[in-house]
Amino acid sequence: VVAIPGKATHQQTRAHNAALVLRALYDHGPISRAEVARMSGLTRTTVGDLVAELIEQGMASEVGRGPSTGGKAPILLELIDGARHVVGLDLAELRFRGALVNLRGNVVQTAEREVGTADGDEAVDLVHELIDELVKGRDDTLLGIGVGAPGIVDAATGTIRWAVNLNWPDLPLGDMLRERYGLPVKVANDSRAAALALQLFGERQTGTANLVAVTVGRGIGAGVVLGGELFHGDGFGAGEIGHTTVVEEGPECRCGRIGCLETVASSRALLRLASDEGEANPDSFLGARLADDGHLRLTDLVAGLTADDAATHRIVARAGRYLGEVIGGLIGVLDVERIVLHGSVAILGEPWLQAVRDEARRRSFPPLSANVHIDIAAPIGDLVVMGASALLLTSELGLASGRAAAGRSVAGRIAAGRAA
Amino acid sequence: VVAIPGKATHQQTRAHNAALVLRALYDHGPISRAEVARMSGLTRTTVGDLVAELIEQGMASEVGRGPSTGGKAPILLELIDGARHVVGLDLAELRFRGALVNLRGNVVQTAEREVGTADGDEAVDLVHELIDELVKGRDDTLLGIGVGAPGIVDAATGTIRWAVNLNWPDLPLGDMLRERYGLPVKVANDSRAAALALQLFGERQTGTANLVAVTVGRGIGAGVVLGGELFHGDGFGAGEIGHTTVVEEGPECRCGRIGCLETVASSRALLRLASDEGEANPDSFLGARLADDGHLRLTDLVAGLTADDAATHRIVARAGRYLGEVIGGLIGVLDVERIVLHGSVAILGEPWLQAVRDEARRRSFPPLSANVHIDIAAPIGDLVVMGASALLLTSELGLASGRAAAGRSVAGRIAAGRAA
Repeated sequence: VVAIPGKATHQQTRAHNAALVLRALYDHGPISRAEVARMSGLTRTTVGDLVAELIEQGMASEVGRGPSTGGKAPILLELIDGARHVVGLDLAELRFRGALVNLRGNVVQTAEREVGTADGDEAVDLVHELIDELVKGRDDTLLGIGVGAPGIVDAATGTIRWAVNLNWPDLPLGDMLRERYGLPVKVANDSRAAALALQLFGERQTGTANLVAVTVGRGIGAGVVLGGELFHGDGFGAGEIGHTTVVEEGPECRCGRIGCLETVASSRALLRLASDEGEANPDSFLGARLADDGHLRLTDLVAGLTADDAATHRIVARAGRYLGEVIGGLIGVLDVERIVLHGSVAILGEPWLQAVRDEARRRSFPPLSANVHIDIAAPIGDLVVMGASALLLTSELGLASGRAAAGRSVAGRIAAGRAA
Repeated sequence: VVAIPGKATHQQTRAHNAALVLRALYDHGPISRAEVARMSGLTRTTVGDLVAELIEQGMASEVGRGPSTGGKAPILLELIDGARHVVGLDLAELRFRGALVNLRGNVVQTAEREVGTADGDEAVDLVHELIDELVKGRDDTLLGIGVGAPGIVDAATGTIRWAVNLNWPDLPLGDMLRERYGLPVKVANDSRAAALALQLFGERQTGTANLVAVTVGRGIGAGVVLGGELFHGDGFGAGEIGHTTVVEEGPECRCGRIGCLETVASSRALLRLASDEGEANPDSFLGARLADDGHLRLTDLVAGLTADDAATHRIVARAGRYLGEVIGGLIGVLDVERIVLHGSVAILGEPWLQAVRDEARRRSFPPLSANVHIDIAAPIGDLVVMGASALLLTSELGLASGRAAAGRSVAGRIAAGRAA
């Protein structure tokens, strides 16, 4: 049979219409029912019903009357930003971070838990603790929970397939949280959540809807946004560039293999190399820093760069070059012009960025790389937490079901809300 | 203002309806007007008008009466496969190839031109000659021209931005052919055209709509199909992996840089290495072959593999490993499970394929690579020519305007036509 675009079911139509009304309030409130009808193309009766429902649910309220256009002055409606909240979590670093955000994406409350050596069930308990703290007393306003987690995450079910750090093989985190909290839950890889946040909230440098956002922290991963939407790949692993081999006889990786990008370009790798250098040369800049504290932090490397310490520059540039090598390959595959770096290592700034850029350019085809912009993300907030809550907000507000433009528009408002 | 999906214009509606009718005839002919109406959801009047137009245009004909379902036996309609033709060209190898194909994608006629050292205007003249030969006496049935060209091609306009081999910088080939022949013209990079052909006509190994098809011939490039559609990247360069640097102190590339993948894994590179080997060791297998002919062909390497010549195996495996290295990186970026190799070098078969697979697997993250299938394309025809004509057929039959499913269906029928 010829596949004709099917008719929408009554329920789909209703959900679609509800989303249109919500969006009109979100983008244009305070606004009258008549204006909502005009903008959405819905009848006044339909708009009236849907608005009544939103008021009933405590999501919207009448906020006075607008200017009369001849007849009776119309009643204006507004979305109540604090009517609903979502929890956004970042489980990818040594410290689990979470935030409670309102409908505009404004952070209402934050919480953190030090992970230390916790893994397996212990780490899951920390996740529960974190959520419990964030949602305390807000149970009735919660829309759901969004999670950015390390490793390969089945974003459809929320199951974490691989998370080397946390010993969570095939952990059905989505189902576990859904059951415990009775709420919608979205789980995505942290790099992908961050990429979504950058696509939604970041500066738009170009008109393109393609973006690769590379997280460089304890782990290295990327989120690939194509046509405005996250591209997951066939097995939710698109962007898993941290375990691409870059050194033949390199260090052993946590994944059990040899010479992965993470072994030479992650925060861990940088600190190991710097510590080795410091131990070997106690009188050097890094040696002195190491002696002071017993261990080095990324801020010690920043200090080394500022002090123009040659060894620090060498270590940082080398890590940057390896990352640039993998990004160079990525440019050939995707020809995506906007590449954004973020994560703890991005604190190293210009010397690191320059090494990444130079190597990526050197290793990729000039007609492509000439148009590529590799930059460090502007400090717009905790990208993973923002992305995780955006995943949930867009899906639960019914505005992102395959409709990227709508999702972006909401997100744009969320961003505007943040900025305000 | 809230962006509501706009109403279609009258013209768009008519084109959409015409496409539905054409597709019903294409997929289900011989078929009655009533059946077309039922399948398409259009009124009998609309179907009657559109069918009359197709008959008027010589695209469809009445072919007798079907079984009666009570009343008068209905008149059956059929698409006339030979009513229209398209030209498909492959300009990526040393021999330009072209075919005239009918509406079912069946090849009606082929033509070739040896390029030799021709480039610039001379090479353009060869393109004209090739088309002139193919379209002779068919002017009134031509739907258009589809071209697979080397280099970076702006698929929107048909301008070739970079084609190292042919000295065609910024050649507006699409406009030139449109003007000369007064026909619709589609130009795409050869690797992208081939990927489209493989997606449309190749074996479906999995349910996925993602595919990377890597051409390995004189040049190396890939076509990236995501969600059933060609992904072009921001500058039409997605898949340009041939100029990714893989050797630090490597040979100079035609692109002016050093150590590109093409310098170690293309047909040219293989033959150069084999010739060097043959010259250095005149008594060896390759030496003897070289002495016989004065130069080597890929078939000499196939013979060397068959004869278990160690030097040939070494050269082939090395080239395969470099390709595998780049594919390994690609796996981390895209997590696409279906990777298909084709082009002249694929003649090297299993030993080469195994080297590609091993290296790609070794260099990529096991949770991803475990599910990747790297295979040599089944011999379903001249992929670039097929892809080039498919580009044109789908666009000109009005069935591919943003509706991938429709395009695939037509293409499926084209494939079925070929098989028949």
